[in-house]
Amino acid sequence: MARNAPLLNVITLDAEDIDSLKEFYVALGWPLTVDEELKVFELRGGVLALYPVERLARDGHAAPERGRNGIRFALEVLVGEPSEVDELAQCVERAGGRVTKPPVDADFFEGRSCYFCDPEQNYFEVAWAPPDNLIFAAARRAASQTG
Amino acid sequence: MARNAPLLNVITLDAEDIDSLKEFYVALGWPLTVDEELKVFELRGGVLALYPVERLARDGHAAPERGRNGIRFALEVLVGEPSEVDELAQCVERAGGRVTKPPVDADFFEGRSCYFCDPEQNYFEVAWAPPDNLIFAAARRAASQTG
Repeated sequence: MARNAPLLNVITLDAEDIDSLKEFYVALGWPLTVDEELKVFELRGGVLALYPVERLARDGHAAPERGRNGIRFALEVLVGEPSEVDELAQCVERAGGRVTKPPVDADFFEGRSCYFCDPEQNYFEVAWAPPDNLIFAAARRAASQTG
Repeated sequence: MARNAPLLNVITLDAEDIDSLKEFYVALGWPLTVDEELKVFELRGGVLALYPVERLARDGHAAPERGRNGIRFALEVLVGEPSEVDELAQCVERAGGRVTKPPVDADFFEGRSCYFCDPEQNYFEVAWAPPDNLIFAAARRAASQTG
């Protein structure tokens, strides 16, 4: 269905303190593959990039948004087993992130999830769900349509 | 390299006016595959989801961030031809988005790009670059490691 759609699997986060933010993701065990002014972490399916806030704003001809008071978006981290939700939550805390919703069996879908934010208040949902879950199915379909 | 990393190819944006925001992405021609309280657009490689701001905040045990004064992150839309950058920019304007940086040949990489924001100030960079571009190469590698 999406074969003619553009490729959308990279998000660039602006970073106030890019070195500290990089270290947070390194501590999660995420693979850092570009470590220049732009930092690139390659996960399965998608890429998380970090770029200094003033540079991103200048590049986009926009003002930087400095509000860091809550959730604005969530990156979904989809894991293969329920126990990985708990393991990643523990890893986040050791790395200096904040688990805002401890791992629980989900209340409106079958599965297990938690939320955390990184040191600059970027939010992630870590989730496991059976293969027929709508979002998991969409993620896998999208990931398979990259040719 | 990232075979043991979690799957990261879904971003959920909070939406103040989810029906209007949905219509914006529909007008871009992006494939809407789930149209319930959660809206899901499936592109190649990744998934863009929309969810009401209060629901996302409640689900994540966080306050909603309502700042909409500038760029906080950029979703990278990678297209196959330089001309597609211009075509998508025109489509964005017709759909009620705002092109903040008109399409130009890029100044710090070989390629062509523009930036736009949707009606709720979520920023996108639309880019074309040759295959050896760092980000394009990372995006394609990540997209191929989804098994």
